[in-house]
Amino acid sequence: MGHRARHPRRPGHRADLPLRPQRARVGGGAPGAHAAGPRAHLRPHGGQHLPRRRPSRSAVPHAPRGRVGRLPDPDPGPLPLQRRHPPRRRRHRCTRLQRRPQDPRRPQGPPVIVDGTVGVLGEDQLEAVHERAMTILEDIGVEIRQEAACRLLAAEGQKVEDSRVRLDRHFVEAMVARAPERFTLRARNPDRSVTLGGGSLVHTPSGGAPFCSDLERGRRDGTLADHVELVKLAHAAPVLRCQQSGVVEANDLDDRSRHLDMDYTVLRWSDKPYICYGGSGSRAADAVDLAAVIAGGREALERDAWIVGVVNSNSPLVWDRAMVDALTVWAEANQAIAITPFLLVGATAPLGLAGGLAQQVAEALAGLALAQLIRPGVPCVFGSFLSAVDMRSGGPAFGMPGGVLGTLAGGQIARRYGVPYRGGGGLCSGMTVDAQSATESLNMLWATYLSGCDLVLHAAGWLEAGLTTSYEKLALDVEVLSMFEAMREGIITDEEHFAIDTIREEGPGGMFLAAPHTLEHFRDWVWMSPLFRSDAHANWVKRGSPDAGQVATQAWHRLLDGYEDPGIDAGTDAELVACVERARRRIGAA
Amino acid sequence: MGHRARHPRRPGHRADLPLRPQRARVGGGAPGAHAAGPRAHLRPHGGQHLPRRRPSRSAVPHAPRGRVGRLPDPDPGPLPLQRRHPPRRRRHRCTRLQRRPQDPRRPQGPPVIVDGTVGVLGEDQLEAVHERAMTILEDIGVEIRQEAACRLLAAEGQKVEDSRVRLDRHFVEAMVARAPERFTLRARNPDRSVTLGGGSLVHTPSGGAPFCSDLERGRRDGTLADHVELVKLAHAAPVLRCQQSGVVEANDLDDRSRHLDMDYTVLRWSDKPYICYGGSGSRAADAVDLAAVIAGGREALERDAWIVGVVNSNSPLVWDRAMVDALTVWAEANQAIAITPFLLVGATAPLGLAGGLAQQVAEALAGLALAQLIRPGVPCVFGSFLSAVDMRSGGPAFGMPGGVLGTLAGGQIARRYGVPYRGGGGLCSGMTVDAQSATESLNMLWATYLSGCDLVLHAAGWLEAGLTTSYEKLALDVEVLSMFEAMREGIITDEEHFAIDTIREEGPGGMFLAAPHTLEHFRDWVWMSPLFRSDAHANWVKRGSPDAGQVATQAWHRLLDGYEDPGIDAGTDAELVACVERARRRIGAA
Repeated sequence: MGHRARHPRRPGHRADLPLRPQRARVGGGAPGAHAAGPRAHLRPHGGQHLPRRRPSRSAVPHAPRGRVGRLPDPDPGPLPLQRRHPPRRRRHRCTRLQRRPQDPRRPQGPPVIVDGTVGVLGEDQLEAVHERAMTILEDIGVEIRQEAACRLLAAEGQKVEDSRVRLDRHFVEAMVARAPERFTLRARNPDRSVTLGGGSLVHTPSGGAPFCSDLERGRRDGTLADHVELVKLAHAAPVLRCQQSGVVEANDLDDRSRHLDMDYTVLRWSDKPYICYGGSGSRAADAVDLAAVIAGGREALERDAWIVGVVNSNSPLVWDRAMVDALTVWAEANQAIAITPFLLVGATAPLGLAGGLAQQVAEALAGLALAQLIRPGVPCVFGSFLSAVDMRSGGPAFGMPGGVLGTLAGGQIARRYGVPYRGGGGLCSGMTVDAQSATESLNMLWATYLSGCDLVLHAAGWLEAGLTTSYEKLALDVEVLSMFEAMREGIITDEEHFAIDTIREEGPGGMFLAAPHTLEHFRDWVWMSPLFRSDAHANWVKRGSPDAGQVATQAWHRLLDGYEDPGIDAGTDAELVACVERARRRIGAA
Repeated sequence: MGHRARHPRRPGHRADLPLRPQRARVGGGAPGAHAAGPRAHLRPHGGQHLPRRRPSRSAVPHAPRGRVGRLPDPDPGPLPLQRRHPPRRRRHRCTRLQRRPQDPRRPQGPPVIVDGTVGVLGEDQLEAVHERAMTILEDIGVEIRQEAACRLLAAEGQKVEDSRVRLDRHFVEAMVARAPERFTLRARNPDRSVTLGGGSLVHTPSGGAPFCSDLERGRRDGTLADHVELVKLAHAAPVLRCQQSGVVEANDLDDRSRHLDMDYTVLRWSDKPYICYGGSGSRAADAVDLAAVIAGGREALERDAWIVGVVNSNSPLVWDRAMVDALTVWAEANQAIAITPFLLVGATAPLGLAGGLAQQVAEALAGLALAQLIRPGVPCVFGSFLSAVDMRSGGPAFGMPGGVLGTLAGGQIARRYGVPYRGGGGLCSGMTVDAQSATESLNMLWATYLSGCDLVLHAAGWLEAGLTTSYEKLALDVEVLSMFEAMREGIITDEEHFAIDTIREEGPGGMFLAAPHTLEHFRDWVWMSPLFRSDAHANWVKRGSPDAGQVATQAWHRLLDGYEDPGIDAGTDAELVACVERARRRIGAA
């Protein structure tokens, strides 16, 4: 059960970079010529106390590189996740399962767990949730407020009275069995395609917020310019392997057609894969049309998933027309669908977590069954978005014990049904980049990693219960996600890491700071970030006593400065623009 | 492997407390008569924006009560931890093992893990660490700079050259086998005694800091008055089950005798058990003399552990005279000893985590073997305090991936040797109560819970790499620890929590906020704290846009206001005072 021996990856020769702990000392020296920069007028602090560029290594743009240890063996052998979560009830299914991960050097599974299933539900508890969910589907039923879907389900022998649909468990289980355990989400740059499934931990930035904020420009209505900037930030952060259209709402544009502009800017300024929202059948169709351009036509599009469309049930137990329309469009195009009930226990679900989970399963599987009925084998993602309500304000309380337990249970449930899992994220209710929002986000990100989420929406930038996408929070979350990636690399126990000879040489009372072994490895083995520093109090005061939010302002600027336009083929770009304009004319928008 | 069914604990009748989400709305109404309070002159904000008392329920003083779910069955049956970590190499040992937890209603083990060993080392990696540690002890040896200890070890056939001692692995293993797997730490109030072992998660406040700080009075040299206040805060927080003498240094007192005053104030103002530091043999003896007063004499003292004394090796591989003197005094008195190498990988240990762990085992087991040689069966705690160095400042970087992995590995190592584990804590390098310190602390607290630490020093209040004990950080950490305790209660899957009838009644499109089931249970089932709120942005602005640090100021005031003097028997108190004065005269201090 232990980690397999790993072949050391030889670091570059670093003799030209001796250890000089003082060279990056903060506050030392005046800010260089770069400190002003093109946005200096926007920054009230003017970089005086907080020089924008530092000689120290920025962790942000190099997130997935080896830190604590080295990358695992390029040939990982049988996937450890298979061992941790043995396939159940799905052994003989024919799916588009990819047995090998996309990037074989990427660590697999939760960060720090050896030989164990991570979860909060025992086997019998998991079955109890399933049983109650089936009871809800069979006895109570769901409202499906779209006639075509009701007709389809009735034709399969399901009980339909007006829009109330009662689903038979055998039908539901047969439909669930059609969904693949893993699938590839294609990007216009093939190197950026990702596999979803098996604990893939594909992170996207936050999305859907009407507001955005940063410490320099304040909290404001989002615009398309903000959207572009945030897309570029997400593109520049390697740990965010997937984009999200609508990372902030482009409120300056006509709301009937801004989804087109937001999708287009994602496609133009990033070559990572992306997820998008439907909102209606026609918007979902617009997303499909744009995706078809990069896929090379509708036929090519239908061979693979090029987008993940997000649909939410209207909890409790309602699938409304707009959502079913969107789900139908995506299913017909064989595009991936993330089906996520938005459950606030005590408001849109009963107060007990157990009941919330049962309702979540009922709602998600109703949507999933419908999608599989429309297009057998269409990739579906089982979504969890379950939180407690703060009974004092009626608002969602993110990052609290109920949300953590719900996220962990959701992972077990998704594995039980053998479909990829969307859950977790850097969710918080905090209003500002402070200890509250950090605590809440960290709780959720630990749950994200421990439950082995496959698709993580809102992994970075989420603030104020999702109403605001924060630039500083995005930079902080990216650093935290990089920490988790470093933790997933685990502890390497080869002779070089044991360094017994070095211990012998230093001997009792020695000091390793200047040891050749330390000088050789500290740049590759030590996780250091400009955001998370250990400094003397006096030096920190000399720097103007910045809190982490202020330091994060520099971090997102550094990230944005490091953004490189991936470029786009001129013909593809023209086609995308034409597609957007056609749709805009059809809508009749400005 | 599932959770066993739990008998519901009937909540009190709550019909007199209807759900009124608006009644505790923040910013509504003027602060009440209590808002000024005796410390109003110390609070620049005067409670205007941040009224000190709120009608909302304070989570702080009620930390261990049921939140997300109910307390587990009072009869927990075989301990789940035993199942998760089957005893190895220790099956036939005769120890003071307690098979039943002290408080049977307290949840056992890590918070959220079902059926798995939580760790980062595979079985073979764990053995590799052990092997290298034995190599260090046998081939390199440790310096033990105290003659009596060297003589004792030589008499057992160990190789002693000057102060360099090379220990045979069979000798070390035989000594380790003498240490109990669990033991009871007695408190002067018997109801407050705790069991250490088996994942007991006994938390203490931070300690050893020269400075303390709060947002009202600023950062300052600690005094005895601060020490008393912090002891009272820790006493008032149920989640801190153990005190720590020296929660801040009483810098206003003579440094030759202030340990007496700090120990005395812990004993006077709290009736919880406590840990203390030695620093020298005579200080360790003073601690023993005071503990003997509450135990009822030296003979009674030696029957149980009444204190945990902390000793640190002087890494790498040195046990200096003062520490060995203290260890000897405590071992002779049969008091518990926490043995903790303080390892900074890349400074006091080699850069690789693997080497750091091997060195940690070598140093800790050398101390443990010596203690067991002096007094067979004396309770010992295997300590881990392993962090990376921030290579830019040379300071310890707490809460980073290396520290998390080291903490998790330490738990596996301690279980391998079958001794209780001291590790984790709310450690951080951040300078202020901000997103950095919260992120670092949360990482370490997740590692604390996942590794099932037994004794958690510095669980609350740690700031600035331990140089400062922060009142606000203490209040925040106490809230976070309460969240973990709620998570440990897991998900209850009885019919009341499934609430299928309620789902049926509300039906598709319903709303659970005012459902009788919600009204009946929301006070017991929902985790709510005044510190972590979900509020509308406009309300938050109306309240003066407080960050979590400012909110935490109210929280520690609330905690301190809730402190109740446990009282002390007048005769015992007089004996303690006499004991302190005798020692002070002996020392010749003022």
